[in-house]
Amino acid sequence: MKRSLGRKTLIMPAPTWVVGTYDAEGKANLMTAAWAGICCSKPPAVYVSLREATYTYHAIEERKAFTVSVPSVEQTAIADYLGMVSGRTVDKFAAAGLTAVRSEAVDAPLVEEFRLNLECRLLESVKLGLHTMFVGEIVDVQCEEDCLNEKGRPSIEKLQPLIFGVAQAGYYAVGDLIGPAFEMGKSLIEADSNADD
Amino acid sequence: MKRSLGRKTLIMPAPTWVVGTYDAEGKANLMTAAWAGICCSKPPAVYVSLREATYTYHAIEERKAFTVSVPSVEQTAIADYLGMVSGRTVDKFAAAGLTAVRSEAVDAPLVEEFRLNLECRLLESVKLGLHTMFVGEIVDVQCEEDCLNEKGRPSIEKLQPLIFGVAQAGYYAVGDLIGPAFEMGKSLIEADSNADD
Repeated sequence: MKRSLGRKTLIMPAPTWVVGTYDAEGKANLMTAAWAGICCSKPPAVYVSLREATYTYHAIEERKAFTVSVPSVEQTAIADYLGMVSGRTVDKFAAAGLTAVRSEAVDAPLVEEFRLNLECRLLESVKLGLHTMFVGEIVDVQCEEDCLNEKGRPSIEKLQPLIFGVAQAGYYAVGDLIGPAFEMGKSLIEADSNADD
Repeated sequence: MKRSLGRKTLIMPAPTWVVGTYDAEGKANLMTAAWAGICCSKPPAVYVSLREATYTYHAIEERKAFTVSVPSVEQTAIADYLGMVSGRTVDKFAAAGLTAVRSEAVDAPLVEEFRLNLECRLLESVKLGLHTMFVGEIVDVQCEEDCLNEKGRPSIEKLQPLIFGVAQAGYYAVGDLIGPAFEMGKSLIEADSNADD
């Protein structure tokens, strides 16, 4: 039996990613975002949805660029902190013990301590209401070598990204591998073909 | 040491959600999407990014509505199947043993067997390239009662949603709770205040 819960953003999982920007004066800043995701394969693009009240919103409008970093489980307190205070009043890089590295590709800072960084050039802004989606074209992905798998791609097991549980407001780890995509469903295709016989 | 991986959508986690639609003739269909997420709090909104080649793309354009359902770990083969075949040629509801329930709120089918369903009215379409983002206003959330926590909200532990590992093309479970949001970061705020003394 289902219960109606109303007009709410109650769906999961959400990511826990960190958005890096320079403000108009060139100060590097970071904020955590859970309203974020991949939104296009060609061009490769991610979005982050931000409230106009945030410092990062204005930095992206100014610089037309941002980075997206993926904190790992052992960096959860840092990720949480970066979503609790404003870059208007605090130097969050210094307070969190993080190192800003100037991107060569876009006008935004990379974060040395986060093991996966994406460099993004602003492609579109879509004002939806309280949040505006900033869609960024992924110009490059940089990953620590010890997080790459045997195919040279970022390993979710090694990276240990955080999951944001929206309804609980809690951070979760990635759990067990259930199985391979585009494989597990084959049993249903075969069952369907047999039924046609 | 970081390695540059180029212009790729290599970031994680992504969700594994199922988009429900009626086509122009009223046939109910489902497809799995990982390029999807929450994108606004007010109005509450989610998006799914779809290729024009999909059957679902045209159904959303026709009906201006869709549902988003969250399959659970034990439904992984079904979720995978729904992303492997096209609703043009197959009745995926029948093949997967799923039951379409007409939404009272929007012109799209709910899925009885998926424990969390969102009913969405199309708010915006944003063509980015290969993918178009369909942003839907969340008109209602419906959740099985046995998946609600003590506050009446969907529990990520009970729901057991899937995580899509983009670089591995694998499905993962949600793992351990690391800690509460807006709490774990307080230690860094306090450390910062002490440093100012």
